[in-house]
Amino acid sequence: MITPRTLKGFRDYLPEVMLPREQAMQTARTVFRRYGFAPIDTPALEYLEILTGKGSEETDRQLYRFTDHGGREVGLRFDLTIPLARFAAQHIGQLGTPFKRYHLAPVWRGENTQAGRYREFVQCDFDSVGTESVVADIETLLVIHDLMLALQIEGFKIHVNNRQILTGLLERLGLVDKTLPVLRSLDKLAKIGAEKTAAEMCSVAGITPEQADQVLQLAGCEGTPQEILAQLPAVIGTGPTATAGVERLQQLFDGAAAAGVPAERLKLDVSIARGLDYYTGVIFETFLDDLPKIGSVCSGGRYDNLVSTYSKQSLPGVGASLGLDRLLAALETLDRLPKVRTPAPVFVAYFDRDRLDAYLKLAGCVRAAGIGAELYPDPKKLGQQLKYADSRGFRVALIAGGNEFAAGRCQVKDLQAKTAVDVAYSPDSPGELLAAIEQILV
Amino acid sequence: MITPRTLKGFRDYLPEVMLPREQAMQTARTVFRRYGFAPIDTPALEYLEILTGKGSEETDRQLYRFTDHGGREVGLRFDLTIPLARFAAQHIGQLGTPFKRYHLAPVWRGENTQAGRYREFVQCDFDSVGTESVVADIETLLVIHDLMLALQIEGFKIHVNNRQILTGLLERLGLVDKTLPVLRSLDKLAKIGAEKTAAEMCSVAGITPEQADQVLQLAGCEGTPQEILAQLPAVIGTGPTATAGVERLQQLFDGAAAAGVPAERLKLDVSIARGLDYYTGVIFETFLDDLPKIGSVCSGGRYDNLVSTYSKQSLPGVGASLGLDRLLAALETLDRLPKVRTPAPVFVAYFDRDRLDAYLKLAGCVRAAGIGAELYPDPKKLGQQLKYADSRGFRVALIAGGNEFAAGRCQVKDLQAKTAVDVAYSPDSPGELLAAIEQILV
Repeated sequence: MITPRTLKGFRDYLPEVMLPREQAMQTARTVFRRYGFAPIDTPALEYLEILTGKGSEETDRQLYRFTDHGGREVGLRFDLTIPLARFAAQHIGQLGTPFKRYHLAPVWRGENTQAGRYREFVQCDFDSVGTESVVADIETLLVIHDLMLALQIEGFKIHVNNRQILTGLLERLGLVDKTLPVLRSLDKLAKIGAEKTAAEMCSVAGITPEQADQVLQLAGCEGTPQEILAQLPAVIGTGPTATAGVERLQQLFDGAAAAGVPAERLKLDVSIARGLDYYTGVIFETFLDDLPKIGSVCSGGRYDNLVSTYSKQSLPGVGASLGLDRLLAALETLDRLPKVRTPAPVFVAYFDRDRLDAYLKLAGCVRAAGIGAELYPDPKKLGQQLKYADSRGFRVALIAGGNEFAAGRCQVKDLQAKTAVDVAYSPDSPGELLAAIEQILV
Repeated sequence: MITPRTLKGFRDYLPEVMLPREQAMQTARTVFRRYGFAPIDTPALEYLEILTGKGSEETDRQLYRFTDHGGREVGLRFDLTIPLARFAAQHIGQLGTPFKRYHLAPVWRGENTQAGRYREFVQCDFDSVGTESVVADIETLLVIHDLMLALQIEGFKIHVNNRQILTGLLERLGLVDKTLPVLRSLDKLAKIGAEKTAAEMCSVAGITPEQADQVLQLAGCEGTPQEILAQLPAVIGTGPTATAGVERLQQLFDGAAAAGVPAERLKLDVSIARGLDYYTGVIFETFLDDLPKIGSVCSGGRYDNLVSTYSKQSLPGVGASLGLDRLLAALETLDRLPKVRTPAPVFVAYFDRDRLDAYLKLAGCVRAAGIGAELYPDPKKLGQQLKYADSRGFRVALIAGGNEFAAGRCQVKDLQAKTAVDVAYSPDSPGELLAAIEQILV
């Protein structure tokens, strides 16, 4: 006998977890499609050379890699962005630009396991490839906003920044070649505080304390977007990159306002840097009001050079990724997930063994009306069947035996209110039955 | 520069293929849910010992296997049935029975590549675990039937058999210990013909020519289900297994008729055996009238001992699997897939650079009505934008510039009929615009 178990860091999704997960994924698809993003899929396995050296030392180390039957070095994808870059480089001639795609799929990382972190998780990415237009930046913001609302999350804030703001300052300070180490230090600001961040910038990036001060002065800019945008030229100067960054942010906030995004849902946060090296323009992070500590649940930004590893063609891109499993874990913590273990609301009890034909017709009537119905498979005692129906979370039970079928009647039981009505029913005229069910399901 | 390419035997799904694929998967979910099947998910990677020795020598050989970071021997799942058995053994106490689940997920097999076969493909499985009731057999048949109709396939036939029929005959012939080799030979009947099948049964299973004749006589039974069921006792005898098999089939056809499945969609085919060892009762295969040669697109059956590798508890099961990629390839061959590359029907042209706010509001109005709308990101020439819209397969284009916005008008263009109407429009009263769009989309 082999012990049934899952690998460390992996998990099974039981129906009560998978039902809201699948619903959230379908919601994401609906929102993405509404903006013209089309679905794609790519293989879970890629040539190792496609995957390595693209993310960071950490992602390289965490990669699931092996040699396949044909002696090829292969790896399981660790995100959906590198496969997108490979995909775009390979197919862009056929796809044309602008190319807007979404991709919902699992990724794998051999991380050290810790609470709430798994080695396999689903990412929900959407990206616009082949345009530098600010319209694509604005749409990315609108999709994040609509997505959160569609997921029935009201309390959230989208933090926005643009890499060009910091780059503009570093240009003025003559520190462009120090961009990456400065960014990485700055990324820790919220965690380790200003003093330690400054010290790290001096020791790791090798900049002066005065320069570190100026970077931290920038990160400390507070206020409404308009107030910050007004302050910025004095802080970062008016070089071409600085000016472009300020202008793109202005257009982004104007566009969001025109499209009806409430101002209180947005925050211009010039301190956010995001650890990833490849961002070149706008950056997004999304925090839940009730659980800010879990971190951003939907993040992304503009990356104008990502495809360059695989193609000579310049393919700018902008997009974001919904951290589905992190968001669902948050909703679970906030007790906002329904406790249901069945996708069908109606339970059909089966207790007159000789009338299986009648039960099949009864369940069929309900399904034909577009309402899910589960027929219990064994003619067990009614009490036992109703206990099962309760434990699964069914809303309605239909109860009839030979006498009821003969009389053209059926009992419709509301399993939450613990009430029941007796209605006229026959397979040819199920109207009264369906009306009674719908009244409970409203 | 790294060459962008996919591994041999793997493929990217571009939007025109992924759109109908995603739609078919959503259709499958809807049908499964309507019968009370709930979604689950399991890891792509399992301990190697869970996967090996369960399918066949072939699946063992084709397994993608490696040693992970923690020194564990692991493998990528090659189907969804073995993970279900492991899952059921592990969680059945919490899940309770009957447990009805569906699972849509990719599986991996390092097969020799040939036309239309890939090393990664999606399976759509649904199963009822924990009940031996014929109701679950009938429901499996009903789900297959409803699924094909929901996928808009009218011409199909579900072939039905029961392993107990052959087992009954072999019991009468005293050949129960030869069941597996006889089954495997019989499985080739349609391919290699009666003579070669008989010869193989004699040489491989070691039965006499007279016994092989009797097996082939059974496989040759033709007629309506009622006619065949009436013949069977004379062919296979009236031992307990034979009688049980005939009775289960009778109940299955009666139930299907009561539930309204047209008789011409079903065929009792006592020759089908299915290669897999684990089936113990009813067997299903589904063939397309227009493309029977591609083989069964939805197959399954009852397996009453599958979980026994992982658990002492007896967990009977019945279910089937939709071969999504095979079915979609068939529909492509039959030219039944739509040629669309966008999930949004409405294209919003952007050609007055200074009125981005107005275009964002225009696209927002359409989306708020639940209609997908893509805003072109760059203010290029209108001709170029409309060429893009045509190539993507948009149905409607909305065209307006500064003058039209000022006058409260918008042009609504039917991209297929090549006609256009001019309607009143403002962000506060989009009624006329939406009506014009909906008229085209009907």
